[in-house]
Amino acid sequence: MRGFASDNNSGVHPEILAELSRINEGHVIGYGSDEYTDKARALFREIFGDETETYFVFNGTAANVLGLSSVARSWNSIVTASSAHIEEDECGAPEKFIGCKVLTVDSPDGKLTPGMVEKHMRGFDFEHHSQPGVVSISQTTEMGTVYTPSEIRKLADYVHANGMFLHMDGARIANAAVSLGLPFRAFTTDSGVDVLSFGGTKNGMMYGEAVCFLRKGLSGEFRYIRKQGMQLASKMRFISAQYIAYFRNDLWKTCASHSNLMAGLLARKISEFSELRITQPTEANGVFVVMPRDLAEKLSRSYFFYPWNESIGEYRLMTSWDTTGEDIEMFAALLKRELKKAQRFR
Amino acid sequence: MRGFASDNNSGVHPEILAELSRINEGHVIGYGSDEYTDKARALFREIFGDETETYFVFNGTAANVLGLSSVARSWNSIVTASSAHIEEDECGAPEKFIGCKVLTVDSPDGKLTPGMVEKHMRGFDFEHHSQPGVVSISQTTEMGTVYTPSEIRKLADYVHANGMFLHMDGARIANAAVSLGLPFRAFTTDSGVDVLSFGGTKNGMMYGEAVCFLRKGLSGEFRYIRKQGMQLASKMRFISAQYIAYFRNDLWKTCASHSNLMAGLLARKISEFSELRITQPTEANGVFVVMPRDLAEKLSRSYFFYPWNESIGEYRLMTSWDTTGEDIEMFAALLKRELKKAQRFR
Amino acid sequence: MRGFASDNNSGVHPEILAELSRINEGHVIGYGSDEYTDKARALFREIFGDETETYFVFNGTAANVLGLSSVARSWNSIVTASSAHIEEDECGAPEKFIGCKVLTVDSPDGKLTPGMVEKHMRGFDFEHHSQPGVVSISQTTEMGTVYTPSEIRKLADYVHANGMFLHMDGARIANAAVSLGLPFRAFTTDSGVDVLSFGGTKNGMMYGEAVCFLRKGLSGEFRYIRKQGMQLASKMRFISAQYIAYFRNDLWKTCASHSNLMAGLLARKISEFSELRITQPTEANGVFVVMPRDLAEKLSRSYFFYPWNESIGEYRLMTSWDTTGEDIEMFAALLKRELKKAQRFR
Amino acid sequence: MRGFASDNNSGVHPEILAELSRINEGHVIGYGSDEYTDKARALFREIFGDETETYFVFNGTAANVLGLSSVARSWNSIVTASSAHIEEDECGAPEKFIGCKVLTVDSPDGKLTPGMVEKHMRGFDFEHHSQPGVVSISQTTEMGTVYTPSEIRKLADYVHANGMFLHMDGARIANAAVSLGLPFRAFTTDSGVDVLSFGGTKNGMMYGEAVCFLRKGLSGEFRYIRKQGMQLASKMRFISAQYIAYFRNDLWKTCASHSNLMAGLLARKISEFSELRITQPTEANGVFVVMPRDLAEKLSRSYFFYPWNESIGEYRLMTSWDTTGEDIEMFAALLKRELKKAQRFR
Repeated sequence: MRGFASDNNSGVHPEILAELSRINEGHVIGYGSDEYTDKARALFREIFGDETETYFVFNGTAANVLGLSSVARSWNSIVTASSAHIEEDECGAPEKFIGCKVLTVDSPDGKLTPGMVEKHMRGFDFEHHSQPGVVSISQTTEMGTVYTPSEIRKLADYVHANGMFLHMDGARIANAAVSLGLPFRAFTTDSGVDVLSFGGTKNGMMYGEAVCFLRKGLSGEFRYIRKQGMQLASKMRFISAQYIAYFRNDLWKTCASHSNLMAGLLARKISEFSELRITQPTEANGVFVVMPRDLAEKLSRSYFFYPWNESIGEYRLMTSWDTTGEDIEMFAALLKRELKKAQRFR
Repeated sequence: MRGFASDNNSGVHPEILAELSRINEGHVIGYGSDEYTDKARALFREIFGDETETYFVFNGTAANVLGLSSVARSWNSIVTASSAHIEEDECGAPEKFIGCKVLTVDSPDGKLTPGMVEKHMRGFDFEHHSQPGVVSISQTTEMGTVYTPSEIRKLADYVHANGMFLHMDGARIANAAVSLGLPFRAFTTDSGVDVLSFGGTKNGMMYGEAVCFLRKGLSGEFRYIRKQGMQLASKMRFISAQYIAYFRNDLWKTCASHSNLMAGLLARKISEFSELRITQPTEANGVFVVMPRDLAEKLSRSYFFYPWNESIGEYRLMTSWDTTGEDIEMFAALLKRELKKAQRFR
Repeated sequence: MRGFASDNNSGVHPEILAELSRINEGHVIGYGSDEYTDKARALFREIFGDETETYFVFNGTAANVLGLSSVARSWNSIVTASSAHIEEDECGAPEKFIGCKVLTVDSPDGKLTPGMVEKHMRGFDFEHHSQPGVVSISQTTEMGTVYTPSEIRKLADYVHANGMFLHMDGARIANAAVSLGLPFRAFTTDSGVDVLSFGGTKNGMMYGEAVCFLRKGLSGEFRYIRKQGMQLASKMRFISAQYIAYFRNDLWKTCASHSNLMAGLLARKISEFSELRITQPTEANGVFVVMPRDLAEKLSRSYFFYPWNESIGEYRLMTSWDTTGEDIEMFAALLKRELKKAQRFR
Repeated sequence: MRGFASDNNSGVHPEILAELSRINEGHVIGYGSDEYTDKARALFREIFGDETETYFVFNGTAANVLGLSSVARSWNSIVTASSAHIEEDECGAPEKFIGCKVLTVDSPDGKLTPGMVEKHMRGFDFEHHSQPGVVSISQTTEMGTVYTPSEIRKLADYVHANGMFLHMDGARIANAAVSLGLPFRAFTTDSGVDVLSFGGTKNGMMYGEAVCFLRKGLSGEFRYIRKQGMQLASKMRFISAQYIAYFRNDLWKTCASHSNLMAGLLARKISEFSELRITQPTEANGVFVVMPRDLAEKLSRSYFFYPWNESIGEYRLMTSWDTTGEDIEMFAALLKRELKKAQRFR
């Protein structure tokens, strides 16, 4: 059964798989002291700037938590959107590993502004209060929206003026880059982001995310943080090689462009039906839609997808690098049939 | 450059890689709710017994720490050999994640006995003292030795009589099974082991280890421990599928048998030279050898391998599923040449 | 300089001090195995019920964090008011020690209702989401308001129906009891509270708070939690004795009644001035008042007190067991003078 | 029943109690922003040097753990004697709070030397291994022995040469100072100690220990560590005042001198009996003695004291500031009677 449950329901892009076979021969030193890892880290420097220090970990939870761990101590607070993955979907991993507080701001579209985080900018130097230390944003957000570079720059300036760090959860950063039509660097390093989780698993990779420190002096002890954080891969070459393939010939862009295109198509199809209402601008590869519960239930017999906000009947439909035009057409056709049936019985 | 640095310097067995391609098609639900994961977990039940609950994580550090986390609270102590991986090579991950104490016992061959752990069996019910909670053993040990089932049973009975749990770090469990000529179950479930880290990465897999709870009632909250422990893989099928291939036609046995065989061959070759002294019985795929430092230095220009105990000039040579007879022959030949040269210059 | 900064700015009630001298003679076993501690724990059983298990710790932060630690694991969330001490004023101690998430609800008067906490009652059994585990309320709240027994009962029933625990931060529980005119038990044990932090320091004691488990089966491992939590006092008798004196002849009631009375008097005085606005019902020993910033500044030259919500010019005035009628009269007189002066210059 | 169980079985010195009454009047700002705390901190600077930064906490466990927390990160190891309080008697508090590893060295007299800690000085810069960060010594040791300044200096130089810190657990530092006949500073600041737990509770105080940072730049974030560590006292003046009284007219010296004197007397009395064997030099206020188990049992019906090493029949007898000559005489008399009785029945 195909579906729109999550971009991680897809398999691995064939070129990634082929790369894994290609680099499989022979012995290489474990734990990242190998030529593939050197090469992959160099690619990140090319993309994000010379000061970039990159470390690979297994998954997105770890990329976020360990990256944050480098710039936050236990007495700090991390401010984020209430919809952020680090708040909603990591089972308290930041609190457990860092021992810090995560403070939230409600944001209808998942994006933060200086004005929104301001309410948590207090208690500085007051030992009774967790010290604001980091603002964490998601690009693409969990609501499928995308920050512009200037929005990020404003936030970065505000955050830095408060002596804090700006962290970006880039689990879907490729979709954002494609959406903006900009190189990664424009809305990260050049917009003031300090630490980045660079994800690939949701865009055609098998596993392995990158923690990128975009400014000097932030990654000092990260080797120990990663190892103690249980995230040092022994056969590291198999993560590194995926990134080499991912960046070769802009495979990431091919995948993310397709995924975004499919989301756009899906959104257009859905918008043809007045019974459904799209709740967020479709800026990347997610479509958020309010629909009747019984309709959703019928559709979900044929396609995986998840409720997002059950109280208002909102559902999330994610497209992926392997979503096909036919997937969309067939889903739209089913939608049409079901809506007709519903009308008939009304 | 090939070598004997570690069994994780090898690549991935072709049948594992082929399986990853085979199961790559289509969409499956993420995070382990897929048929491949169901299948793999069922295989573990077949092998270890009906009560076995298996959860996949990314690497061996996590398998050990999260598995231990299920049976130890922060006020417990975990007793292990001073050579154990959880003491020496996990950068304090058990202490960080569990918050508990790791107590050690020196053991020349890496194996523990009831008599050896007895010194830590004290302070029960005394709130000032960490409560002995778990004994953790490695099978194969870090010294390349192998516990017999009856050695494990004695330890298990002793541990259980003290109200504690027996944990096994099975990063090289396949090499032990082959060495003993016994099914896994004989020296785990049937010998009283409670929690097992079942490794495959050192024996031909790419990544992904299994935490196996061998008795009922131990895994209750493990889902949350794993997620909060940053070890829940989104594209889980790619771990599960590796285990399916690993168990199919006893691939694990083919790999481990070969690896052990190569170690035996290497040990025999080495034992021909009176200048070298083997320090541990070669029961699995590791050969521990004392040799002159300048010889070691010369050899290591052509072959990766690590010093083990620098104070006595001891080195560790590991063989792998992909070590060839030719590797051994050429290493032995180089050894011979270097020893001859050394003699000449004396 | 006297003031209204906090009820912990006061000294220790003379009867408490006298008790410390009285029990100072001779040797007693340390760490709580002494007759004074037995006696004090028995008193708690008399007051809160036979099932009550009481443990002394040093301060309120610890009472809250360690008490919560008994009923929450790291993958749980604790739901509380955004004004709660555990959220605002403990520098992330719950997150650090328990590793859990603290989720908040805005509440104008600091009190929670089932309807208010409902928004966090989700994600049960979903491993990606912290599992709702505890609701924590403050009695007296940080806003000086007091829950009725039936309000607590409703919350307890709701919380228990969700398989969770109800925790009460009773740093000012004596002021609540006096305010309600009820025995402690009526709005704790008998209203469904599971774990209670029973404070005395803010009501005439020197140091030492009690963690009371009001139902069986909750305190199992608390001895270890307390010791590892760095909160086991060696000379425990000096905490226990304070509680013995505190409960003798209802000293606690004398102190809290006086304190509440003074707050009432202060509130009445303040309400005579139209330039000031009281923002919360004065139900215990705190008066919350909005006043012009320059007035506050002038008053604070003679009396300690703190801003509460700077954005609206709100200040908090706390009375204490040693606040005198004269304190109030003189403060009111100063207030009058300053307001007159201000009028003159307008 | 009087005894020799621990120096914390004694009460509080009357001058300390008197001071608590004396400073009880009126209001002072809480949490350490008061004149008594300023005064006490200034006294520590006078004693330990101008760079000394002192923070009060509630007890010795916290002084050790929080002090260590300032100079160790979770990926560090702390090296200490296996008899050290932080290893044996704090229920894993360092591991829980810091997340680090505690490594031990067996030491017959509880004292460490560079040669003894050397075995743990390895794995530097190797991410798999906890990074040696701190050596922690106890002065007086848990075996009642005392380091000379030059022993400490040698250790400090060795520790600093390895880029590490030297921590001293001074729970019984006064007894050491008296034993050495030296000012505190001679064997702390001037001998290279970086962080000190300065205890008073075992020498006549009621509660409250001091964490002293003896060099600049170590205490930067300690305010937050202490608060989040649940160790910030609201009515801080009652800790500070104890230290003011403790240092006034060298009360600490009076108490510790007496205590040491009593231990010497006790040791001499015991040494008169050939059936008993003293196992450690009596350098401070502890006497360690091997005696027949049945004798120990009979004595302990009249006097509290603890077994130390049950396997060899070793017992620990601690004297205190309030131990009297009569206590010793009566104990010796009982000892004599019991030995005679035993002889008669032999």
